[in-house]
Amino acid sequence: MSTNSFGHVLRITTFGESHGPAIGCVIDGFPPGLEISAEEIRADMMRRATGQSRWTSQRKEAEEVQILSGVFEGKTTGTPIALVVYNTDARSKDYSRIAEQFRPGHADYTYHHKYGIRDYRGGGRSSARETAMRVAAATLARKYLQDVAGVEITGWLAQLGEEVCDLHFDSAVIPTNPFFCPDADKVAQLETYMKRLWKSGDSVGALVKARATGVPVGLGAPVYAKLDGDLAAAMMSINAVKGVEIGAGFGSVAQKGTEHRDEITPEGFLSNHAGGVLGGISTGQPLEVAVAFKPTSSLRLPGRTVNAAGEPVEIVTTGRHDPCVGIRAIPIVEAMLALTIMDHFLLHRAQCGDVAPQQPRIPT
Amino acid sequence: MSTNSFGHVLRITTFGESHGPAIGCVIDGFPPGLEISAEEIRADMMRRATGQSRWTSQRKEAEEVQILSGVFEGKTTGTPIALVVYNTDARSKDYSRIAEQFRPGHADYTYHHKYGIRDYRGGGRSSARETAMRVAAATLARKYLQDVAGVEITGWLAQLGEEVCDLHFDSAVIPTNPFFCPDADKVAQLETYMKRLWKSGDSVGALVKARATGVPVGLGAPVYAKLDGDLAAAMMSINAVKGVEIGAGFGSVAQKGTEHRDEITPEGFLSNHAGGVLGGISTGQPLEVAVAFKPTSSLRLPGRTVNAAGEPVEIVTTGRHDPCVGIRAIPIVEAMLALTIMDHFLLHRAQCGDVAPQQPRIPT
Amino acid sequence: MSTNSFGHVLRITTFGESHGPAIGCVIDGFPPGLEISAEEIRADMMRRATGQSRWTSQRKEAEEVQILSGVFEGKTTGTPIALVVYNTDARSKDYSRIAEQFRPGHADYTYHHKYGIRDYRGGGRSSARETAMRVAAATLARKYLQDVAGVEITGWLAQLGEEVCDLHFDSAVIPTNPFFCPDADKVAQLETYMKRLWKSGDSVGALVKARATGVPVGLGAPVYAKLDGDLAAAMMSINAVKGVEIGAGFGSVAQKGTEHRDEITPEGFLSNHAGGVLGGISTGQPLEVAVAFKPTSSLRLPGRTVNAAGEPVEIVTTGRHDPCVGIRAIPIVEAMLALTIMDHFLLHRAQCGDVAPQQPRIPT
Amino acid sequence: MSTNSFGHVLRITTFGESHGPAIGCVIDGFPPGLEISAEEIRADMMRRATGQSRWTSQRKEAEEVQILSGVFEGKTTGTPIALVVYNTDARSKDYSRIAEQFRPGHADYTYHHKYGIRDYRGGGRSSARETAMRVAAATLARKYLQDVAGVEITGWLAQLGEEVCDLHFDSAVIPTNPFFCPDADKVAQLETYMKRLWKSGDSVGALVKARATGVPVGLGAPVYAKLDGDLAAAMMSINAVKGVEIGAGFGSVAQKGTEHRDEITPEGFLSNHAGGVLGGISTGQPLEVAVAFKPTSSLRLPGRTVNAAGEPVEIVTTGRHDPCVGIRAIPIVEAMLALTIMDHFLLHRAQCGDVAPQQPRIPT
Repeated sequence: MSTNSFGHVLRITTFGESHGPAIGCVIDGFPPGLEISAEEIRADMMRRATGQSRWTSQRKEAEEVQILSGVFEGKTTGTPIALVVYNTDARSKDYSRIAEQFRPGHADYTYHHKYGIRDYRGGGRSSARETAMRVAAATLARKYLQDVAGVEITGWLAQLGEEVCDLHFDSAVIPTNPFFCPDADKVAQLETYMKRLWKSGDSVGALVKARATGVPVGLGAPVYAKLDGDLAAAMMSINAVKGVEIGAGFGSVAQKGTEHRDEITPEGFLSNHAGGVLGGISTGQPLEVAVAFKPTSSLRLPGRTVNAAGEPVEIVTTGRHDPCVGIRAIPIVEAMLALTIMDHFLLHRAQCGDVAPQQPRIPT
Repeated sequence: MSTNSFGHVLRITTFGESHGPAIGCVIDGFPPGLEISAEEIRADMMRRATGQSRWTSQRKEAEEVQILSGVFEGKTTGTPIALVVYNTDARSKDYSRIAEQFRPGHADYTYHHKYGIRDYRGGGRSSARETAMRVAAATLARKYLQDVAGVEITGWLAQLGEEVCDLHFDSAVIPTNPFFCPDADKVAQLETYMKRLWKSGDSVGALVKARATGVPVGLGAPVYAKLDGDLAAAMMSINAVKGVEIGAGFGSVAQKGTEHRDEITPEGFLSNHAGGVLGGISTGQPLEVAVAFKPTSSLRLPGRTVNAAGEPVEIVTTGRHDPCVGIRAIPIVEAMLALTIMDHFLLHRAQCGDVAPQQPRIPT
Repeated sequence: MSTNSFGHVLRITTFGESHGPAIGCVIDGFPPGLEISAEEIRADMMRRATGQSRWTSQRKEAEEVQILSGVFEGKTTGTPIALVVYNTDARSKDYSRIAEQFRPGHADYTYHHKYGIRDYRGGGRSSARETAMRVAAATLARKYLQDVAGVEITGWLAQLGEEVCDLHFDSAVIPTNPFFCPDADKVAQLETYMKRLWKSGDSVGALVKARATGVPVGLGAPVYAKLDGDLAAAMMSINAVKGVEIGAGFGSVAQKGTEHRDEITPEGFLSNHAGGVLGGISTGQPLEVAVAFKPTSSLRLPGRTVNAAGEPVEIVTTGRHDPCVGIRAIPIVEAMLALTIMDHFLLHRAQCGDVAPQQPRIPT
Repeated sequence: MSTNSFGHVLRITTFGESHGPAIGCVIDGFPPGLEISAEEIRADMMRRATGQSRWTSQRKEAEEVQILSGVFEGKTTGTPIALVVYNTDARSKDYSRIAEQFRPGHADYTYHHKYGIRDYRGGGRSSARETAMRVAAATLARKYLQDVAGVEITGWLAQLGEEVCDLHFDSAVIPTNPFFCPDADKVAQLETYMKRLWKSGDSVGALVKARATGVPVGLGAPVYAKLDGDLAAAMMSINAVKGVEIGAGFGSVAQKGTEHRDEITPEGFLSNHAGGVLGGISTGQPLEVAVAFKPTSSLRLPGRTVNAAGEPVEIVTTGRHDPCVGIRAIPIVEAMLALTIMDHFLLHRAQCGDVAPQQPRIPT
């Protein structure tokens, strides 16, 4: 049991603080023989990296990832793969003021009360900087899943504040704009929205969706390692997440059974309200997840809080922060989706010996 | 790693099929010295039991739970506590027809493809019958948490289909009606609704909410065993759940940062959009979770599906089923909340040695 | 993490006290499709059972094992398999005298100080009665390993006190005598030895050896789940075990490198000082383990101890006890060997996808 | 579940290959507030380091350990502590010859068959280089245990080949000689022995013993996380270990019950054949473990083996190697002892809430 590890048989352990010397991870249980390079990993990490657009934090990390172990002559060997990225653009003095204050909406208050000591610089361990290593680890998982099962994973911005972003969905549009928005006509509107938001000093929440196609039928392990249960834990472990849905999600509350149940024909399921999971096991249909991100709590607009002595203070956060953390979280959602699927791919193989090919008759 | 176990240091392992000889659980890591009796456990189980009202499945289980181990002279001893309930009212022939058919919205299809063999009687392992043992195990956890920390857990029906049920909230009303509805004025309306639903042969989804008060500050373990992450997994592992929210949940998508962040004063937090968790660690405020249940998939209204040979068949489910599984799930949501909190209570003690008293200054 | 569970992906959880209502286990992660019956399991359990010969405790347990879950129409389904045996011949009053005394060499003292409460009847959880469920669980593992890989497991008594029992080894002799002795000429001598021991009121230790043939090359997982590391834990978890050796074991201390290293030829390894494991991974040679059992501590010869109040008392144990617990432990050693191998068989499959056939060129 | 992790709630994950870029570890679950510096860790690592005497491998590693996370302003914070040491004196070309050959007694053969690919340089992951990180992690555990419970851990060389080294035991002598020998009169003899051994080109095994005093009564967790069971796994996970004993160990085979059972008086136990553990739980007496190390398999004396093509070849290992790996393993045995005790210290606290002070009345 490690509370900084994720996965059953594909086990990711991360470490590192936002402004500490380095962040890193250990990937254990990864199959031997996959070709991988630091460059490939870095390319994925840059999708999440800050400083990539004017709408995200201007901290600029080079993400010069080093592979410290587990890869020999360009291939995974089956031994633990350690990745490390030294922090280079950590401006710790930005945070000195908050050493003794609890930023509202942040983990300052709870870390202080739990541990009695905290690395306050940039949020320390509670910073989203940690998630960079999830994306790094997932580079290997995505490549593996693509190779062995043709799994493809796509995440996108479904809503920014009150702006719905995926009324028109074109996956080809997603990588062409800094919002991961799938609707080409919406991008300009989002820019205006973000400009206004930036000017106001406030922040906003986001709805992120992700989909995995090509997932073989049969992945998942009842009862407490259900594929959707593990996905929920995976997503909720991402900073700022307040809600997770699979398939119809909260929409299923108001559905009738005749509407929700996905009927089956010899040609496949007629709908996918289930989101690709029944009884915690993949159906072979696309795996569909939606994740709610709260608005950034670090604001230059003053707020009330207390200091460690319990005295009231006014707080203003002047560090470099995203006005909407949800945007940059999209590669992280994709990463957690990939890691969860691969973990269950291997776990299924342990118990059942082989992985059923995806049912070709089932339209996705 | 056991996929039928839940929890880090308080570890619950369940077993059993809906129509097999028995269901049961093993509770490992429970502290010694708690007074407990089979009667207390049974009383809790009856809250969840079927056949308790005309609105739930008419299967009548006596829930005659036996304590097989771990309790000596009425007290827990620190060794594993095994509970078992023999199934008495399992009418397996009700299900013989579906042995070769995949019920839409059920786990039949996925279990078949995963394992190549399945106990189709009453859904076998995928039946909500399994959750009876969660409620049983949670009886001990609730009592322990109440004793050592004054934690109180309350669950209720927040929405039935499109009917919102908690506009007026009075916790005293919840146990007085079969819907766990907290609004006395709403109960009659719900009865009418359910009658109509029953007549129609259709089913409906539900929104269940639960709250824990008295949770000490400091529980939770970053990064992959966050209190909210573990809660998400716990809730999503319940049958028919399609979504989980903590605090403001999906509502936080459209919130501004100034609105969402819970400001702090010497008298406490000014709001609880966080739902009692910041950075994966409890704040001492009430822990608040909302859970979406899909409508029952077992319907007497015919639906299309295929049989194991892949041929199209029409299916009608005639067994005894709840028209809204969400109602009966309320004690299960409470149970998973209790088990998760207690697990983190013990886990915190392992690492940090003591549990901080709940902050008395923080209004809840 | 469960401290009453064993195994990585094949996970056995046991429960029960010696004189409690029942003992049992949950087997999680077992592959679907294996034919198994309660009768087969009971037959294996009887090999370990007390009362089988005049040299073991005269407690007579029928071992009427029930399969409560995970088996449908005679085959495993992939869901958790729960086994339970109700205790029938537990004479608790035999133990009433020791409720307040700590028997030397027993767990009374340590359970008391750890938990503050203990089920003293027959040793409660610390009794070897628990191991009956390991044998039960291993029935399935042995059958599976035999089916898929031709693995055969044999345990025997190698030494009884100072009497070496396997100078002449004939595996066919083992099941023909109550000592699991592989030397036909030795059996009469052992009977005389045991008679004298019984008369003296004293007890004696034993050396048990076990071997598994047919183990595929490649099982084991560096670094902290090495096959030999897991075997060491498995064996040391058996009651009364004080030492574990793999291959040459403690004999390797005085060996030279040229003597110990097993040279390899195209026809196979020239020796097996390694005991079938190199670097924590199986070589395909026989897996060989030796286990030291201490003498029974329950003696009718009086001994000094203290009671719970710390006062000196003289203790005499009058319950039914084995004069040499090591003899009856042989099926348990075999069981732990089988469970460990099967766990690694599945674990290997998770990471590496297939299990290499045993190297036929390597003489065993 | 991670096969490169060790411990239940204090969880150590190691990574790295002998001649890869770096080795490292992540320590998860460590309590906040312990003062620690890289210098302290390095000092401990140097005790194990190669090149420290003429009797160990001449590879000279500076062990310039970096603390990458989990320590802030000189104190642990409760978040994962990552340590890394870059390999500096790895002469990989020494090993190029063995890329295609399986060194007898090494993991070459088994890694090849398990993974199909291996980092052959210096043994890769199977090298004892990995153990440097165990010593590093244990620096923190030893300091913690000393602080909170006064636990002291001492390891020594008990036997070198056939030479018994601890007939006269003086713990003060251990750090004064390169053999960790506790008998001052024996040291010269060991030097002569090693010179002759070195000249001969052969290697020899060793018996290492270790003792922990001050261990509180009550640590350990039945049944499958017994303190001695976990110690057995911990020790067997060290490279070249072939046997583990607790207390009387294999000597208990020939003992009578009246001899072995440690009688108790109001002044304490009268002996310690148990080695400080009864029923898997610490008694408060010294914890005593003995570990058998096989002779080094890397020899300049030629041996027979096969290459990857299965053809017979003669092998000579010319790299820098210890003629007796057991000597250098003593700090590793101490490290695993410390890590195991601390893990159980925390685990006990989780379940039972407090750690009983060591029984002062019990002489150690």
